[in-house]
Amino acid sequence: MSLDKVKALTFDTGGTILDWHTGFSTAMADVGAKHGIEKDWGSLANEMRRKSLGRMLRLGENEPPTYNFDDSHRMSLDEVCAANGLDAFSEEERRTIWWDRAHNLQCWPDFPDTLPKLRSKYICASFTILSFRIIIDTARKNGLSWDAVISCEAIGKYKILPEAYAGCAKFLQLDPSECLMVACHNFDLDAAKAAGYITAFVRRPDEWGPEGPPDPEPNPQHDIIVDTFPELAEAVGAA
Amino acid sequence: MSLDKVKALTFDTGGTILDWHTGFSTAMADVGAKHGIEKDWGSLANEMRRKSLGRMLRLGENEPPTYNFDDSHRMSLDEVCAANGLDAFSEEERRTIWWDRAHNLQCWPDFPDTLPKLRSKYICASFTILSFRIIIDTARKNGLSWDAVISCEAIGKYKILPEAYAGCAKFLQLDPSECLMVACHNFDLDAAKAAGYITAFVRRPDEWGPEGPPDPEPNPQHDIIVDTFPELAEAVGAA
Repeated sequence: MSLDKVKALTFDTGGTILDWHTGFSTAMADVGAKHGIEKDWGSLANEMRRKSLGRMLRLGENEPPTYNFDDSHRMSLDEVCAANGLDAFSEEERRTIWWDRAHNLQCWPDFPDTLPKLRSKYICASFTILSFRIIIDTARKNGLSWDAVISCEAIGKYKILPEAYAGCAKFLQLDPSECLMVACHNFDLDAAKAAGYITAFVRRPDEWGPEGPPDPEPNPQHDIIVDTFPELAEAVGAA
Repeated sequence: MSLDKVKALTFDTGGTILDWHTGFSTAMADVGAKHGIEKDWGSLANEMRRKSLGRMLRLGENEPPTYNFDDSHRMSLDEVCAANGLDAFSEEERRTIWWDRAHNLQCWPDFPDTLPKLRSKYICASFTILSFRIIIDTARKNGLSWDAVISCEAIGKYKILPEAYAGCAKFLQLDPSECLMVACHNFDLDAAKAAGYITAFVRRPDEWGPEGPPDPEPNPQHDIIVDTFPELAEAVGAA
């Protein structure tokens, strides 16, 4: 595998860059504390994530999407609340979770100092199923400067549909083989690989909190497999 | 007019931020010099601009676009060459004009230091009929960090269609009245205003070189009218 042709790094952003688990579980715990409710908030945050992700993957396959990831967060939180006796959470309180916290997620600490190094050599774009606005707001909060945000919101076809990967490469005016997809998820990277991308698996063992990620072991087909973003920078010659 | 509600500044980018006239006229002159040809290159650059702009405005009105602004630059340059006895320009030489130079245009000198000030208070997005890739590449060249690039390429409807302005606001998840459109062109600002945006006219008297812009006087309906980007920063409380 040669990286000579690679011109752009496209980053899965939720999970790979942003720590949604800590964000959502602490936001839920904060609201719970107001009501004197104790729950396994980490587990509920994961439940919300599973539901919201499930709503987004392959969205647009048969008809144009009618909602984005913010709507998905809202709907999924409502379901989690209904199923777990959290009806006391007001609409306003829920919004502090599905909007405020989603737009203020912290990124993993090894990323902010590495992004400028990667950008010195490659176009670095967020390529995400999250909404444009989540990426814009979290980038501002974490001091990240993406070269562009390519949200599936703009493609109308969501990962892991092949049209999503083709659409991102088209907007970048690159052949898929000139794009390196960076993610901590096999499902995303496998689909990118099938669409002709080079792939890099970056391990994020804390993505799901103590529960651990559902699919932590990188499929061996990926071109780069690393534990950290500085290691990724080394691997792509931008350290 | 109150700016209290404004959360995002959306920037027309070709012309308002980027000096296409100097870029294209010098690139054409360089190729002409190789062939010992003398022409009024500034005038030919303007002809190329008129043609390429004409191909893009309202694109997507009746059917999905089949080309982007890079294609438009290529087709328009071919027409200018054919009409002006420049058949000697090779395909490779033409590419140095319509691709290489378009992706390396200089921005106006009063913008790079002002953008971070504007970003400290507002989301600042390129909202453009240019391709994603032109904005990505010119931002990298000029050291600009946009919060996002919203290209009409992703909306499928180009300015001055109302759907373009609605689409940009939708991706930002803002009401149009929370968006301040910044441009040096009445046609863009008038359409933005009609779509509910607040508008700021920034004069760029050199956009068309010595010939001068075709419509330099701001329509009085615009909410802010200034000569420079530092003046814009003052006007929006971000100086």
